[in-house]
Amino acid sequence: MRRMLTAKLRDSSGVLNRFTGVLSRRQVNINSISVGPTEVAGISRVTVIIEVETLDEVEQITKQLNKLVDVVKVVDLSEGDHIERELMLVKLRAVGKDREEMKRMTDIFRGRIIDVTDKDYTVELTGTCSKLDAFLKAIDRTAILETVRTGASGIGRGDRVLKV
Amino acid sequence: MRRMLTAKLRDSSGVLNRFTGVLSRRQVNINSISVGPTEVAGISRVTVIIEVETLDEVEQITKQLNKLVDVVKVVDLSEGDHIERELMLVKLRAVGKDREEMKRMTDIFRGRIIDVTDKDYTVELTGTCSKLDAFLKAIDRTAILETVRTGASGIGRGDRVLKV
Repeated sequence: MRRMLTAKLRDSSGVLNRFTGVLSRRQVNINSISVGPTEVAGISRVTVIIEVETLDEVEQITKQLNKLVDVVKVVDLSEGDHIERELMLVKLRAVGKDREEMKRMTDIFRGRIIDVTDKDYTVELTGTCSKLDAFLKAIDRTAILETVRTGASGIGRGDRVLKV
Repeated sequence: MRRMLTAKLRDSSGVLNRFTGVLSRRQVNINSISVGPTEVAGISRVTVIIEVETLDEVEQITKQLNKLVDVVKVVDLSEGDHIERELMLVKLRAVGKDREEMKRMTDIFRGRIIDVTDKDYTVELTGTCSKLDAFLKAIDRTAILETVRTGASGIGRGDRVLKV
């Protein structure tokens, strides 16, 4: 079962290490993790995608993370309606007639070409994880030179706001 | 000094925890971190933005990280020409005449409105960290209900490819 947890962290030395420590001690499978600053100084927000067997497991993980000093609040976003977005940068070989095809694929997936050389394109693409996977599937494997993904970020739909 | 390190990690239990452990033991200031899958199964890529005093410190951190089992390769992207991109989701209060203004600001920064209620907009925005900061500065503080950022991802410009 794929679940998206999000939490606010107080910026302190080692807080992220303690956070990932809980997950690693429980041997939870982490698909992706992303941490960035928030609108409040001194508070970061982390989003993590994990694979678990049961809902009970998620509850235990959430409880254990909430107990950590400097973890302000952990929420299981998958519980309610939410939006998920991830950013991917892909370097694609684009030579000869591939150049046209790669541009076309980028347009179809509403990506943006952000760097060009005579041999390759670097494409920026945002969407859900499955949309990004679909793009990579649609492209000829040998043309994919490099991919970097930020890991998913999530936010509640509508009026759902995660308060500190 | 702001530096962007990127590394490939072999997917194994606790690898991310060991990675952040090195940074936390050295009391390095982590601005953001993002981890996602790559085009190769079993390999993830992590990008981390850190604040350090000297180049020597970066070199020591890189060396120490490279020594870790399951860390395939650590590279200091800031050393050369590179592209940096981050994704931000922002929930903005949008009532009355603010609705027009918020839509306009989103257009100016080439963002996308991905969710709408009668009281707020959720905006998706990509760019460098400083572009995202500029957007938040341009918006009336009280209108910002929630922000989530993925942390920056980076990729070398042109033909620079990080091989496994």
